[in-house]
Amino acid sequence: AMGRAVGLAGLLVGFFLVSAVLVSTSLRHGAPRAEPGPESAEWEDTSGSGPEDSLWPLPQWVRTSRHQLQLAPDRFQLLHGAGSSAGPACGLLQDAFRRYYEYMFGQSRWRKRSRGPLGDRAAPELLQLQVVIESQHSGCHSYPHLGSSEAYHLTVTEPVAVLKADEVWGALRGLETFSQLVHEDGYGSFLVNETEIDDFPRFAHRGILLDSSRHYLPVKSILTNLDAMAFNKFNVLHWHIVDDQSFPYQSIYFPELSDKGAYSYNHIYTPSDVRLVIEYARLRGIRVIPEFDTPGHTQSWGKGQKDLLTPCYDEEQPTGSFGPVNPILNTTYDFMTKFFKEISSVFPDAYIHLGGDEVNFNCWKSNPDVKEFMKKQGFGTDYAKLESYYIQKILDIVSSYNKGYMVWQEVFDNKAQLKPDTVVQVWMENNYAHELSSVTGAGFTAILAAPWYLDYISYGQDWKKYHSVEPLNFPGSEKQKKLLIGGEACLWGEFVDATNLTPRLWPRASAVGERLWSSSNVTDLADAYKRLTNHRCRMLRRGISAEPVFVGYCAHEAR
Amino acid sequence: AMGRAVGLAGLLVGFFLVSAVLVSTSLRHGAPRAEPGPESAEWEDTSGSGPEDSLWPLPQWVRTSRHQLQLAPDRFQLLHGAGSSAGPACGLLQDAFRRYYEYMFGQSRWRKRSRGPLGDRAAPELLQLQVVIESQHSGCHSYPHLGSSEAYHLTVTEPVAVLKADEVWGALRGLETFSQLVHEDGYGSFLVNETEIDDFPRFAHRGILLDSSRHYLPVKSILTNLDAMAFNKFNVLHWHIVDDQSFPYQSIYFPELSDKGAYSYNHIYTPSDVRLVIEYARLRGIRVIPEFDTPGHTQSWGKGQKDLLTPCYDEEQPTGSFGPVNPILNTTYDFMTKFFKEISSVFPDAYIHLGGDEVNFNCWKSNPDVKEFMKKQGFGTDYAKLESYYIQKILDIVSSYNKGYMVWQEVFDNKAQLKPDTVVQVWMENNYAHELSSVTGAGFTAILAAPWYLDYISYGQDWKKYHSVEPLNFPGSEKQKKLLIGGEACLWGEFVDATNLTPRLWPRASAVGERLWSSSNVTDLADAYKRLTNHRCRMLRRGISAEPVFVGYCAHEAR
Repeated sequence: AMGRAVGLAGLLVGFFLVSAVLVSTSLRHGAPRAEPGPESAEWEDTSGSGPEDSLWPLPQWVRTSRHQLQLAPDRFQLLHGAGSSAGPACGLLQDAFRRYYEYMFGQSRWRKRSRGPLGDRAAPELLQLQVVIESQHSGCHSYPHLGSSEAYHLTVTEPVAVLKADEVWGALRGLETFSQLVHEDGYGSFLVNETEIDDFPRFAHRGILLDSSRHYLPVKSILTNLDAMAFNKFNVLHWHIVDDQSFPYQSIYFPELSDKGAYSYNHIYTPSDVRLVIEYARLRGIRVIPEFDTPGHTQSWGKGQKDLLTPCYDEEQPTGSFGPVNPILNTTYDFMTKFFKEISSVFPDAYIHLGGDEVNFNCWKSNPDVKEFMKKQGFGTDYAKLESYYIQKILDIVSSYNKGYMVWQEVFDNKAQLKPDTVVQVWMENNYAHELSSVTGAGFTAILAAPWYLDYISYGQDWKKYHSVEPLNFPGSEKQKKLLIGGEACLWGEFVDATNLTPRLWPRASAVGERLWSSSNVTDLADAYKRLTNHRCRMLRRGISAEPVFVGYCAHEAR
Repeated sequence: AMGRAVGLAGLLVGFFLVSAVLVSTSLRHGAPRAEPGPESAEWEDTSGSGPEDSLWPLPQWVRTSRHQLQLAPDRFQLLHGAGSSAGPACGLLQDAFRRYYEYMFGQSRWRKRSRGPLGDRAAPELLQLQVVIESQHSGCHSYPHLGSSEAYHLTVTEPVAVLKADEVWGALRGLETFSQLVHEDGYGSFLVNETEIDDFPRFAHRGILLDSSRHYLPVKSILTNLDAMAFNKFNVLHWHIVDDQSFPYQSIYFPELSDKGAYSYNHIYTPSDVRLVIEYARLRGIRVIPEFDTPGHTQSWGKGQKDLLTPCYDEEQPTGSFGPVNPILNTTYDFMTKFFKEISSVFPDAYIHLGGDEVNFNCWKSNPDVKEFMKKQGFGTDYAKLESYYIQKILDIVSSYNKGYMVWQEVFDNKAQLKPDTVVQVWMENNYAHELSSVTGAGFTAILAAPWYLDYISYGQDWKKYHSVEPLNFPGSEKQKKLLIGGEACLWGEFVDATNLTPRLWPRASAVGERLWSSSNVTDLADAYKRLTNHRCRMLRRGISAEPVFVGYCAHEAR
């Protein structure tokens, strides 16, 4: 079923002429209003409540009309438009069509109503949403990556709406936006205002960090979170999969790692679990970047891999405790070579996060063999040099598999030699602007996490604090600013598991989502409050137990 | 099926002789160890991990043995013991037997195993738990009240365990404790250590405040919370049912109150919802004390009851806004007389909470009629006197229905004339010890809430802070100390609804539960940590999404 885009052509031409200068404007924000488009008589500001009261994150450019169209759930179609490089063979879009149809109409009572013409209301009807992928390479059967295009252009006019995007990733974002425009009126009719939207992300890397080591997270929780991420236009799941506390990743080459390092036989991610997460994410335009943090944060690795960790000493005697990965043994690098070969092939993303944070030197300092190695290498007593020695070797191993890597900021601070495409993640809250300045000043790509540690909870509407962060507010040139490619909301798992993950993360992370997607001038907290409240109710309707923003209720919540 | 208690008689006689002096001791706490009982050779400390590692709240007196008994789920019986004043006609206990049988054996795999003798282990078997209610008035068909006995005595020895209590309320607490003693070993066998427990609550009023006005709480959420309360030996649901934001209580006399004051037609508690909550609570030994807070916190009342609230003025003109209940009109008291007549009959508890907190005087001050009334009454400009005038009348109305009342501390502070059995709830965090001293010094009964506002969240293990509160640590005589009858953990609803209620409340409120039940010397946080972690996993197993205490996992949690 291929649709047609005729009739809209003239409108679109006019639109595209002005859209180039109409960036970053929305109708209901304090930001300077852009000049009206050529159809200004037809298109007006909506001052009261309207569908744009629930758009989240706010698109870069929205123009909406009071003119409403009705949608008949038993007639309305989502389909591939003429000229699209994607068609019914594009499972990703087919799947998205079904999903968004369900989000828009699923929970309603329409099935009880008879088929036939719409009610006695005289509103004109919207019959289709035609999705057109314009690039020859739709991306349908590939994975999203850092350079993927997520831009889209949406026009909703009678009788068909058209969603255009270079790649399927933009179409996914546009489908989310379209579904946010459709609303039910008091009579149960589905309506959408005639609207034009031109949208694209401000930052290319918009991530959520989940930690499945401090507490195991059931696959179902991770999938639910991926749904919520899509609703908020996040595109990276940073999967902090293992750490000191447990090693739930079931390795193919080294099954003892999880056999002995997981909390229990049940608390593991099998290869098929991992594949499921990656595919579920892909279908939502989300990258999965696994983190295998070394040389610190590795206590659980030691249980299943003999001699991997450094034996700690007390007065020349081994204590039986272990410290970070042992950086002085060849066997360590043999292991890592094989291990990261597996990881590079299991996880399709071009990046692996190699960690490198919070290495405690005490155990290394206590170990006589390490001390001797330090001497031999001429490191003196500078254990940061030993850390860099280790990290350097790991980076080289991973590079040899044609993977890029992300690292925590210490790796940069300790002056490891990094490939130019390394992404440095800035997490220390103290003076993070300065760190961003240093990292980008050295020519490296950075992402910001420091102000968005969502595991730190406090009373009240802390989403405002997350929303108010301006990531580019650090000293640096334009070129440096371009090197900040995004950020992450981090939900470390010390106090989080399946019982509280979803309400703790959402809608607080939504604030980060808007900051990373929308224009920098989207800073009106009163307006954001209204939209976030509605957005949260929508997430609830879609099965995400997002906690309340403040007092009130959702029309659809369970009694 | 009446059991028998013979064989235990001798043991019990010996036990009761010493139990009088053996209060407040448990085997694994830093508290001074009580002298060993007459069977000291047989009964030993267990130093490793054992069932007492999960007892919560810790009973007043526990003696446990290494001697283990097996339970066969297809044979084990909970039944009424000889001499009990309760029998199969006691639906409350029958219901509790079924419930605790399920908690002990329900989630296991035993049904897959064949009937017949237990495995090749030579452990002796526990065949029954006999429950004996010793008072002629078992309480079976009544409601729990402030003076109810919750004490119980439990002996677990081969071949039958005996649980004795004056009233069914103590039996409910003892069943909870017994169920906490039963554990599964690595082979899936159910075991219990031979144990003697003598237990009773330190404080008579142990409450949880839920707020169904800032957000509506579905009945199901309230019932789930009642389950969790029973697992933690709480005995009062303080139901802050209405407030400024919404009026979900569906009144029989005044249906407009919820018709217009509830968030929506769906966000109400019908009379049968209320009955369900009360009965579900009763079956768990929990009182339901409703709060109808006036004269402040009443914005939602004004929507469905004309002229109830005070019209506010600005420069001699009504603003269209309303303040607290209008205390100068006879119609106000006519309404309240009828309203509280209904409440007194709908809620069986002997107490109603009348609120009286945070009355803002600005609106009263602005209203010319109120000003004139103040003059006439000789109140000068002291609006606290007007507040007391109002409260006094409400107290008298409620008293006339033979109900006692609870009030927030301001009512006492403002010197309203209170009946001697009034319960004053101390909630202001600033110098609450001083307030406790004043309230009890004036001869009134007090309950403490100030240090247990669980809606105030913070990062980390804040349960330790709640656990470390010593309620009696205020200046006052022994007589004054006796007037502090308990406390409440308050979960105000500004940021809480069904999405996050359970994990936000549990197990944090468990800390308050232990403080209010157990001996004052139960203060070892390391030991409490171990028990709380296990208790939280047990709650999870029983369907309560209690959040994690810290890193780790539960054996039974969902994959």
